[in-house]
Amino acid sequence: MMTQKNKRGFASDNNAGVHPEILKAMAAANAGHTVAYGDDDDTRKAVENFKAHLGDDIGVFFVFLGTGANVLALQAAAQPYHSVICAETAHIHVDECAAPERFTGCKLLTVPTADGKLTVEGIRTHMHGIGFEHHAQPRVISVTQATELGTVYTPEEIRAITDFAHENNMVVHMDGARLANAAVHLNAELRELTTDVGIDILSFGGTKNGMMYGEAIVFSNTELARNFKYIRKQGMQLASKMRFISAQFNALLGGNLWRKNAAHANAMAKLLAREVEKIPQISITQKVEANGVFAIVPPEYVPELQKEFFFYVWDEATSEVRWMTSFDTTTEDVLNFSALLGKIVG
Amino acid sequence: MMTQKNKRGFASDNNAGVHPEILKAMAAANAGHTVAYGDDDDTRKAVENFKAHLGDDIGVFFVFLGTGANVLALQAAAQPYHSVICAETAHIHVDECAAPERFTGCKLLTVPTADGKLTVEGIRTHMHGIGFEHHAQPRVISVTQATELGTVYTPEEIRAITDFAHENNMVVHMDGARLANAAVHLNAELRELTTDVGIDILSFGGTKNGMMYGEAIVFSNTELARNFKYIRKQGMQLASKMRFISAQFNALLGGNLWRKNAAHANAMAKLLAREVEKIPQISITQKVEANGVFAIVPPEYVPELQKEFFFYVWDEATSEVRWMTSFDTTTEDVLNFSALLGKIVG
Amino acid sequence: MMTQKNKRGFASDNNAGVHPEILKAMAAANAGHTVAYGDDDDTRKAVENFKAHLGDDIGVFFVFLGTGANVLALQAAAQPYHSVICAETAHIHVDECAAPERFTGCKLLTVPTADGKLTVEGIRTHMHGIGFEHHAQPRVISVTQATELGTVYTPEEIRAITDFAHENNMVVHMDGARLANAAVHLNAELRELTTDVGIDILSFGGTKNGMMYGEAIVFSNTELARNFKYIRKQGMQLASKMRFISAQFNALLGGNLWRKNAAHANAMAKLLAREVEKIPQISITQKVEANGVFAIVPPEYVPELQKEFFFYVWDEATSEVRWMTSFDTTTEDVLNFSALLGKIVG
Amino acid sequence: MMTQKNKRGFASDNNAGVHPEILKAMAAANAGHTVAYGDDDDTRKAVENFKAHLGDDIGVFFVFLGTGANVLALQAAAQPYHSVICAETAHIHVDECAAPERFTGCKLLTVPTADGKLTVEGIRTHMHGIGFEHHAQPRVISVTQATELGTVYTPEEIRAITDFAHENNMVVHMDGARLANAAVHLNAELRELTTDVGIDILSFGGTKNGMMYGEAIVFSNTELARNFKYIRKQGMQLASKMRFISAQFNALLGGNLWRKNAAHANAMAKLLAREVEKIPQISITQKVEANGVFAIVPPEYVPELQKEFFFYVWDEATSEVRWMTSFDTTTEDVLNFSALLGKIVG
Repeated sequence: MMTQKNKRGFASDNNAGVHPEILKAMAAANAGHTVAYGDDDDTRKAVENFKAHLGDDIGVFFVFLGTGANVLALQAAAQPYHSVICAETAHIHVDECAAPERFTGCKLLTVPTADGKLTVEGIRTHMHGIGFEHHAQPRVISVTQATELGTVYTPEEIRAITDFAHENNMVVHMDGARLANAAVHLNAELRELTTDVGIDILSFGGTKNGMMYGEAIVFSNTELARNFKYIRKQGMQLASKMRFISAQFNALLGGNLWRKNAAHANAMAKLLAREVEKIPQISITQKVEANGVFAIVPPEYVPELQKEFFFYVWDEATSEVRWMTSFDTTTEDVLNFSALLGKIVG
Repeated sequence: MMTQKNKRGFASDNNAGVHPEILKAMAAANAGHTVAYGDDDDTRKAVENFKAHLGDDIGVFFVFLGTGANVLALQAAAQPYHSVICAETAHIHVDECAAPERFTGCKLLTVPTADGKLTVEGIRTHMHGIGFEHHAQPRVISVTQATELGTVYTPEEIRAITDFAHENNMVVHMDGARLANAAVHLNAELRELTTDVGIDILSFGGTKNGMMYGEAIVFSNTELARNFKYIRKQGMQLASKMRFISAQFNALLGGNLWRKNAAHANAMAKLLAREVEKIPQISITQKVEANGVFAIVPPEYVPELQKEFFFYVWDEATSEVRWMTSFDTTTEDVLNFSALLGKIVG
Repeated sequence: MMTQKNKRGFASDNNAGVHPEILKAMAAANAGHTVAYGDDDDTRKAVENFKAHLGDDIGVFFVFLGTGANVLALQAAAQPYHSVICAETAHIHVDECAAPERFTGCKLLTVPTADGKLTVEGIRTHMHGIGFEHHAQPRVISVTQATELGTVYTPEEIRAITDFAHENNMVVHMDGARLANAAVHLNAELRELTTDVGIDILSFGGTKNGMMYGEAIVFSNTELARNFKYIRKQGMQLASKMRFISAQFNALLGGNLWRKNAAHANAMAKLLAREVEKIPQISITQKVEANGVFAIVPPEYVPELQKEFFFYVWDEATSEVRWMTSFDTTTEDVLNFSALLGKIVG
Repeated sequence: MMTQKNKRGFASDNNAGVHPEILKAMAAANAGHTVAYGDDDDTRKAVENFKAHLGDDIGVFFVFLGTGANVLALQAAAQPYHSVICAETAHIHVDECAAPERFTGCKLLTVPTADGKLTVEGIRTHMHGIGFEHHAQPRVISVTQATELGTVYTPEEIRAITDFAHENNMVVHMDGARLANAAVHLNAELRELTTDVGIDILSFGGTKNGMMYGEAIVFSNTELARNFKYIRKQGMQLASKMRFISAQFNALLGGNLWRKNAAHANAMAKLLAREVEKIPQISITQKVEANGVFAIVPPEYVPELQKEFFFYVWDEATSEVRWMTSFDTTTEDVLNFSALLGKIVG
């Protein structure tokens, strides 16, 4: 049996391993004793690194995983009688097994979109029943950047949403599991997509960009962070040996590794799209802006392709598939895959 | 400023770092792509390692941290109208910021103990109102092995509790954050303290015994594990790059590292106790069976001692302190510390 | 100032008072002492009355209100990692301030419908991700009979849904806040719409059909009722002086009052629809099958009409309004109202 | 079979029926249509009645039952990471099937007491770990007036607790299910025991003092009431036909019925105590200040006594029983009961 470790694919950016520089930083952090739960030098430095990127007036909290980051961010912003407006494709709605509902008590209100991007127009469809006690009160708008469909909001698009939110006494959460990929696409700094355009709470992802585990919750609206340390502990996201999360972020954000990794992943997605476009039976369904390619592959070809490369069918009904690239995807991976695809369909 | 990393102490076994063999195993796991969320070879091997220790008829699930392990274990066993009986000193009651109540909905019923060990007699004080709907129904008994006070249940003591539980249609959860230390003290195999004596669900701790992060929930009562994968995901404890938790457990449990680490920590605690006992102003308050030493230190000496070595005051009222040792505590640490203590009080 | 009590309207069937026979029964129940919490003769008789209507093999539990009935019914059927499929217009989704999410932890998955009625086709759009832990698992289908739009499912339509559910290891909950109105429309017995066609759990409404307060949760699937008494108590729905809820149900269900009240309300809705149809500017938007009339009223006429008669605008965007009739709506009410409407629109 | 209705007893003040004046007021409220959910004249008048008793600067919300009042009051005051300190005998701890934990997420911290009354000294035993994220943060102190043991706090005792709470950024909730009985005992106005002595949130009980159903949550700390309407709706406690709760409170509080009912119940308890004290085998265990009598009855006599009169054994271990009197207990009831008791024991 071929071991899985040798089998490469496009299933998800979290099927990749850990970037060697990050692993090295983790080993370096393993020196002697340090106070647990975040009162340590690595963690202090990691907070400074976030401030260097996002501005000094922020609160930063490290957690284990993206679902934890999203759920606790929502809890910090909302009471149980609030609702959260998000795209129908949002990870918080589709991929977190109702953890947001379970832990916040809030209702998620979804907006159908063509490209995974919320608009003020779509949000407005849920802006009724304000002040009416029978109706969960809209309180949080959650956007994903880059989206689950591989598309990217422009700063202006984000700003339109945050302006709307703030005019309506609401706050905006960004699920930034792939924020680095969006920043690369826009050739922007991280703050231009977040603090500069009014994002109140950010889930900043590390795991999908070369880390082993660990995400950060960043509050620009620091009032919302006031009692967050209790929410994190009660939310089962307080790491005892936190220095090892912090050290990863220091490796990622201290230099330009975050950008390098994301740029590579994005480039591989673009290459994949270019190669696949040459095959007439395959049609790409979303703009390839970040590190994902969505395409319709006639269903009869899917199983054979999956035998060699892991990936997921996104929508069984339309036979739309998702191919994700990561920091360690190689040109060879892409060319082998597209060649195989061409051979199978053609 | 002296950096914290150079400052050693007895605050907690999670102030230690990661055992080098474990770190090495993590690096070795970092080879290429693998399916996320546990469908990988390292994880399959880790499950096998647990079965080798605890028997084949178990369900094993990896999570990020001890609080997560405990809370999800309780949720697997209890409905919200149930109650959980535990010692007044239990980590689930004292140190988890009410996460058990918040996520299970259950009431925790506590039993005062002299040594952190539940007894059937103590449990019986909460066995009333059975079948009476106004009363949360006793369903889970949670024991900690070794206890939060550094003491250890004998297998017979555990069996008495599990027998009582099963006669009363209840289940027994063991918080085994320091199970290895207990096994070393009793010179027993892990299964002699768990599956062999009727434990239904076990939180098996890695972080306090030399791992970086990661704990396991082990179901002997596999019926309770039936839908646990959803509980884990919704409970924000499903690691995407799970192989790195699994690899740590493989290093710990594949050979005898788990026992070596715990044996060393226990030996250091015993050494510390012996040294401290020589100082007449200090009285040790609990049997030193695992890797903790509890002692009354007159309050005037505490701050000066804490300047040089981290540790926590356990009970302000009596000035009882807690000193924990770990796999990386050195004889020199212990001797320096007890010498300083002698000097300060004497 | 005209007191509100003299102001009649079509806002809701719960703006009506209590039917005199029911009030009389409550007074009659007020004789001496009786055991609280349901261990009393009135409650035993009420359970018998339900069995006479719905069959002997049921579990019956009384609660205070409809939201309580719905939420606890869902909790009895679902674990927090389950999802509940309902129409986009369902009361549990629109009018309960996210109480279902908050108390069950479940995700609600909504289906757009033209007439408030779920179909198997609509339900199927949510039947994916089965067995996939990232996805809340579909477990309950909730239908409302009569629907929130005044339409009525036929027994065959219900049966199609319950068959689908049972084939998929799911259960069907019926929100029967207006079940009596549906039974009248179909000229059917209550059981023909519920237990006979596979409904597993029923919220049976009293308040909207002439009672003061009180609803019943009826389990045909009695396995789901096994520990329900604890769910009811913990769910803050256990009435101490329960005999006064039971006495109301005895008045309603012991004879044919339930049918008489609902028949009258339905007849008034039909009369209202007939009168309103004569006004060309007004268009009725839903079949008038139960006790509600939905119509588009040009927005400029609404405020003047609302000055004299209470009612709610259902959809601001389309100026669709909702008019509800009740057991105490009079022909005069309807004629006065439709005359005024005719006068206003011109 | 003797019907239960004819069987009188001392089981609970909620085994009694409804006071005739209250029933009359309910019938009077049943006139025509009125806006549902509290926007009606009866409810406005009820709020005014509460203000006349407790001061103008309060927020008043009606709910269905005492458990609902307590749980929602706690939720208004606490976030899930907070703890609630109460006596070990508190209804919220003992008799609400963990509804407080389930719906607030908070930990309940209990204080053993001799007489059901919290003291600052007892509260202080839980005032540690402040600011420490592993520890649920003390936020609410909950007192019961009169206590579950039939004793009564003096205003000075309450004030000592509220002063302590406010100095520590905490709030005080009073479970006033039997507040009227306490006021009668102290010959005090309701406000002297609540708003005048710093109570922040009050659960005001009606059901145990002659009402059919309905309790009130009164906020002196009106900041805590700001979004309470959503908490009430989501908490399944918003009555549609609210006028019928309000009308009961108007009958109870508009004149002196609340005092008359409570005074009678208290007098009957005192009479019962006097009679029972004559029997040497029986020892009364608590001061008889409100409407309950606690006594040790040798266990061999209990079953025979219970055959004729309902009552509960409070503590099986000591054979302590609880006898509650109510507004409709008669002198004859008391004399018959004590005579029977005398006969049985001696």
